[in-house]
Amino acid sequence: MELRIVNKITIRPIGIIHSPYKEKKDIPIQGKFRSKVEAYIELKKKYVKGLKDLDKFSHAIILYYFHKSQREDIEGKPFLEDEKHGIFAIRSPHRPNHIGISIVKIQKIIKNKLYFTKVDVFDGTPIIDIKPYVKHFDEQQNVVSGWTEKHFQDGNIPEKTINQIKNLD
Amino acid sequence: MELRIVNKITIRPIGIIHSPYKEKKDIPIQGKFRSKVEAYIELKKKYVKGLKDLDKFSHAIILYYFHKSQREDIEGKPFLEDEKHGIFAIRSPHRPNHIGISIVKIQKIIKNKLYFTKVDVFDGTPIIDIKPYVKHFDEQQNVVSGWTEKHFQDGNIPEKTINQIKNLD
Repeated sequence: MELRIVNKITIRPIGIIHSPYKEKKDIPIQGKFRSKVEAYIELKKKYVKGLKDLDKFSHAIILYYFHKSQREDIEGKPFLEDEKHGIFAIRSPHRPNHIGISIVKIQKIIKNKLYFTKVDVFDGTPIIDIKPYVKHFDEQQNVVSGWTEKHFQDGNIPEKTINQIKNLD
Repeated sequence: MELRIVNKITIRPIGIIHSPYKEKKDIPIQGKFRSKVEAYIELKKKYVKGLKDLDKFSHAIILYYFHKSQREDIEGKPFLEDEKHGIFAIRSPHRPNHIGISIVKIQKIIKNKLYFTKVDVFDGTPIIDIKPYVKHFDEQQNVVSGWTEKHFQDGNIPEKTINQIKNLD
């Protein structure tokens, strides 16, 4: 028996992301590995009051639409891997509903513009939500990170990630 | 000038959350504060292969639709506060696009069912994505958490949160 749930939800972007990343080859696998690059969110003007007090937080969680993905995979091979994993065990854009999340470092907020670093999104990405990153909610204890663990042993950042980004640093 | 961006995105839930929380008065402000309660995600059967290898992760990030929210606020007063903050500086469900995220503790995966603890969502919530929580991507250094800081000083959990949940523990 198929599940009986709401069938369709309509999302309307709240703004757009302006980023220096125009092409796939430029973009790091996670913004955390490119801490100096700056981007900004330009919110629709009607949402400007929604940013009140967000500048008291160091980090935000942004939700956005993977607008460049044209397909939906059920399994995929992440950049660092030779092996396939289920789409819900990887962070690939080619997923059902094409929604991405990133944790970014807030730099400043001026009117309807939120400037941030730790960028890993394309220029022109539609943004659908911004949430405060709350230490007491979002940090977890005893985290085990599946297939990613072997790539980050002893605090290392994998060479593949570095190679991909060195031209821009 | 208003922004020129994609106007509408259609989301189709990938499944539903079965949770013991049927009413607002039962639900903790964050699942982190109720670590024993169990819930599960029932995925549509066509997505079952997407869960491959997710059981090697201790935590998942779930994205869902706040289906009980009937309104959209631009500012709001969080449960712990007497003061209003912008909607993008709080985690309220009454936000543009009504998308929620939670970090949950994975217990087990059996076929199309993902059992988890650290639950803070209503029974019947439509789920729109599941992502692995990756320590090396999602943990941040030097986090400052705005208005929430004063409620969690010296590692305390605020009394209000405890009071709200004591009936179920």
